[in-house]
Amino acid sequence: MTYLTLSIDGMSGDFGPKVIVPAIIQSLKLNPKFIVFLIGDCNIINSLINKEDYHLLKRLKLIQSNTVLSSDISLSEAIFNSKGSSMRIALELVRDGKAQACVSAGNTAILLGLSKLLIKPLKGIHRPALATILPAIIGNIIILDLGANIISDTKMLVQFAIMGSIMAETVLNISYPRVALLNVGNEEKKGLANIRNASKILKNLSNINYIGYIEGNDIFAKKTDVVVCDGFVGNITLKTIEGISQIFFTFIKNSKSLMPYEFNFLESLTRKKIISNFSCFNTDQYNGAYLLGLNKPVIKSHGSANQKAFAIAIKYAAKSILFKIPEKISNKIYKANIPYLG
Amino acid sequence: MTYLTLSIDGMSGDFGPKVIVPAIIQSLKLNPKFIVFLIGDCNIINSLINKEDYHLLKRLKLIQSNTVLSSDISLSEAIFNSKGSSMRIALELVRDGKAQACVSAGNTAILLGLSKLLIKPLKGIHRPALATILPAIIGNIIILDLGANIISDTKMLVQFAIMGSIMAETVLNISYPRVALLNVGNEEKKGLANIRNASKILKNLSNINYIGYIEGNDIFAKKTDVVVCDGFVGNITLKTIEGISQIFFTFIKNSKSLMPYEFNFLESLTRKKIISNFSCFNTDQYNGAYLLGLNKPVIKSHGSANQKAFAIAIKYAAKSILFKIPEKISNKIYKANIPYLG
Repeated sequence: MTYLTLSIDGMSGDFGPKVIVPAIIQSLKLNPKFIVFLIGDCNIINSLINKEDYHLLKRLKLIQSNTVLSSDISLSEAIFNSKGSSMRIALELVRDGKAQACVSAGNTAILLGLSKLLIKPLKGIHRPALATILPAIIGNIIILDLGANIISDTKMLVQFAIMGSIMAETVLNISYPRVALLNVGNEEKKGLANIRNASKILKNLSNINYIGYIEGNDIFAKKTDVVVCDGFVGNITLKTIEGISQIFFTFIKNSKSLMPYEFNFLESLTRKKIISNFSCFNTDQYNGAYLLGLNKPVIKSHGSANQKAFAIAIKYAAKSILFKIPEKISNKIYKANIPYLG
Repeated sequence: MTYLTLSIDGMSGDFGPKVIVPAIIQSLKLNPKFIVFLIGDCNIINSLINKEDYHLLKRLKLIQSNTVLSSDISLSEAIFNSKGSSMRIALELVRDGKAQACVSAGNTAILLGLSKLLIKPLKGIHRPALATILPAIIGNIIILDLGANIISDTKMLVQFAIMGSIMAETVLNISYPRVALLNVGNEEKKGLANIRNASKILKNLSNINYIGYIEGNDIFAKKTDVVVCDGFVGNITLKTIEGISQIFFTFIKNSKSLMPYEFNFLESLTRKKIISNFSCFNTDQYNGAYLLGLNKPVIKSHGSANQKAFAIAIKYAAKSILFKIPEKISNKIYKANIPYLG
């Protein structure tokens, strides 16, 4: 059996090992191929796993660390003081080839900074990007960058398009996926200079199915499989979606029933069904952003992820290994031979 | 009686006079103070109003024009060829003091360009901005810029904050409204340079209740009354909200009932109630963007507005006159005496 070896930062995130350990146990049970290096406070972890099956635990290797990197200090300070932290050890295991992919729910900027330092960007990649999967009306879409780079020049946007395209091909299993640039209109002259220039280059890349610009209201209309934007816009768009979804859930839960009393039960079932239709918009369902453009897969989990959500991030890490996403990106970037533009 | 005189572009928008004329009739009936100059094809308009009361029609003055400005040509070309168009005549009436405010459902860029040319920006205003009202959990919020300026420097963001604050004070009737800059994090060091610099200036403006940065997921959490961002981000954020709301409506409508057959009616009522709770997110409910920073009020209606939605845009125009929004902006901008920053 070919094993998939993951290193997981067990200390980061809002809930730390309390959520991460059960998520790992759940994943190990479901996937007999998984081997997990878990970096965290061994005392706490042991207290959380002492009832688990001995054979299962053979695939869980504990590494001691009780240092979490604080996001209250500056990025450079955090990286300078990162030695021995759970996040850094998790990344070092991947760097050293002991694990094939890393998962962390730690601070995005620190995870990105340390990943660039330890795992290194792929040759030819200008800047790694954060990508995630969002639900559309039919099927899912990939959106990137979600905040790894708040300013993105032309070349970066083109590379994001290529990376997103590979992610859609592999993770979403779409052949020749449609790629669009997020903009304020459909006409060629619209938007910012970096977007217009990226559009010109993408039109000439034969191995990318570039379809042009889309607007914000088209993100979920399944007009495209990949949405490309700079990290500032991507971050605000994603968080706006999360915020408004939360409001909708609250509205549905709190809206009064008009049914006779004896049908309260059925009424609440119907309402639950409506909410479950929306659940794809719940952050629990699409937790996990891929840090694309690094030599090895790194997955960022939402800091507030619960057990179910963290298990999704673990699944993404496994998919990244299986689908050889870094290798495929490297290949396609090389072949694209993107021209230099200002 | 003090009349409110509006000039309305009757030819623009997706549906033209078919929607605009009934919306005007509805508004005239509800508001005995309204006088409307309607610019459009008099034959068509007359066929739409020939059953209306003679006294009512005394407050509707028709001006002939059947030229609509196409958004297919370049902005400069559209403006060059604008003479005699319904939009231009509507704006000229405001310029010449014959009407107090203008409403158009035409192309945003052309309306903005022509407004700057004819109505002129207020003294001291760097660039006018597009602002609208969005529903939050409790009460409404103002968001700007929505696309008048795709790049916004520090000074513009500060002016947007001041203009948005006045709009919240007057239109939403909030005293000392909270104003926030939309950003990718709450910490001071986060985001783009223009935002960070605008934040520094806003902190020192004593007549603005500046509360710092908010993220996308906080837009609807009622943490602020005014959300300030550049036009690129604002446009994409607003359209993303519209797109996702549309999906939610579809989901609710299409989700299957679990009720016994005889309760179908009550079930559908409950569902309608849920949808009506959401209806504030419907573009019909918050149609109408204020073009802030001009010498006179100009309101942009959504191109796809229906009768109800267009009537809301008319109401906004009347509010702009009543609340003297341009005068108040002019005053506050002058008092703020914004320092020049790079």
